[in-house]
Amino acid sequence: MRIDIITVVPELLRSPFEASILQRAIDKNLVSVHLHNLRDYSSNNYKQIDDYQYGGGAGMVMMIEPIDKCITQLKSERDYDEVIYMTPDGTTFTQGIANELSLKKNIIILCGHYKGVDQRVRDHFITREISVGDFVLSGGELGAALVADAVIRLIPGVLGNETSALTDSFQDNLLAPPVYTRPAEYKGWKVPGILTSGNTPKIEQWREDQALKRTQNLRPDLLDE
Amino acid sequence: MRIDIITVVPELLRSPFEASILQRAIDKNLVSVHLHNLRDYSSNNYKQIDDYQYGGGAGMVMMIEPIDKCITQLKSERDYDEVIYMTPDGTTFTQGIANELSLKKNIIILCGHYKGVDQRVRDHFITREISVGDFVLSGGELGAALVADAVIRLIPGVLGNETSALTDSFQDNLLAPPVYTRPAEYKGWKVPGILTSGNTPKIEQWREDQALKRTQNLRPDLLDE
Repeated sequence: MRIDIITVVPELLRSPFEASILQRAIDKNLVSVHLHNLRDYSSNNYKQIDDYQYGGGAGMVMMIEPIDKCITQLKSERDYDEVIYMTPDGTTFTQGIANELSLKKNIIILCGHYKGVDQRVRDHFITREISVGDFVLSGGELGAALVADAVIRLIPGVLGNETSALTDSFQDNLLAPPVYTRPAEYKGWKVPGILTSGNTPKIEQWREDQALKRTQNLRPDLLDE
Repeated sequence: MRIDIITVVPELLRSPFEASILQRAIDKNLVSVHLHNLRDYSSNNYKQIDDYQYGGGAGMVMMIEPIDKCITQLKSERDYDEVIYMTPDGTTFTQGIANELSLKKNIIILCGHYKGVDQRVRDHFITREISVGDFVLSGGELGAALVADAVIRLIPGVLGNETSALTDSFQDNLLAPPVYTRPAEYKGWKVPGILTSGNTPKIEQWREDQALKRTQNLRPDLLDE
């Protein structure tokens, strides 16, 4: 899988892709992530990529031309399955979308910044708009890193233990059950006895019950889906 | 405001806090962000901070002792308003929570990793559990960066233009209206005439209409709240 990220602050994204699971996936050639500095596609000497918004008001708007140039160049080199725009008013990102994107070959992620991109970019170049949630960030970069992380860890071979991702929260619309590790007692706080009983079928039953109970308490909406 | 982030991969978080708005806020002394490597609080020679889960199954669990040590040391140095745990089964992060947290003085953010922390950490040390959305990440680090970003940009003085954050999506339960910048025509695609009319009251009315229309189309649930 190849992910091209278009951004005005590529330096912000450096360390997330140089650490942990993402780096391991890149090292194993399971994925390649390419950061593109939008300023390199500016057509004027000031490397301008934003301008005041028509109609007045606070906040700058990202111009259409540099974005067009960058996307057009990438598309001339290979086919893309999706050109994604990170924006607070996009479709809310879910595990289902992560699963879907993990099957794609090449995707572009355009990071909004300032007040966002000129609407004509959205109308003519974007195939999918994603929001990471109902809050506003200083840019789409962290959202893009988050989408990349959620997607990349689903690619077979990325996680050390293949079964690990399948028992995560949301893969079956249930939250994960509580987990415990050593010591069995810490400052008088004990691990539930069932978990140290060695009775695997009972442990599995307990986990299912706990996952259901936790979901009912914290996120009953997940059970309605 | 002071934010202490406890993590097993501090290097992942370096660049987000060294770039863009977050760095500017730190440079202006409006906020300080401190990364704590959980391994520095391990009590054994292998810097171990995780272990197999009781009851068997894939995935490692973060141990209680190093987390206890780290949080206890921080608390001995100052009072904290919140000890937040980033976890997919926490309360979904929203702009409302960002607004609330932006008024706090000192907060700790503990990043989950692997299968998460020993449940006893959640029972005894955590005051608030936050999820950034219904998807699973390889760790809580990107979620913590995202929460920090959403919160820090609300601190007065962080954004260049004070009015900018107030016109963002979600601050009034409406999505932001479309924005446009120069050129007025690009490859035959034109900016709506109203925006270049100079008629400010009509422009404001158009923006309100568009924001409402976009919210009705894309996120009718926001209007029910």
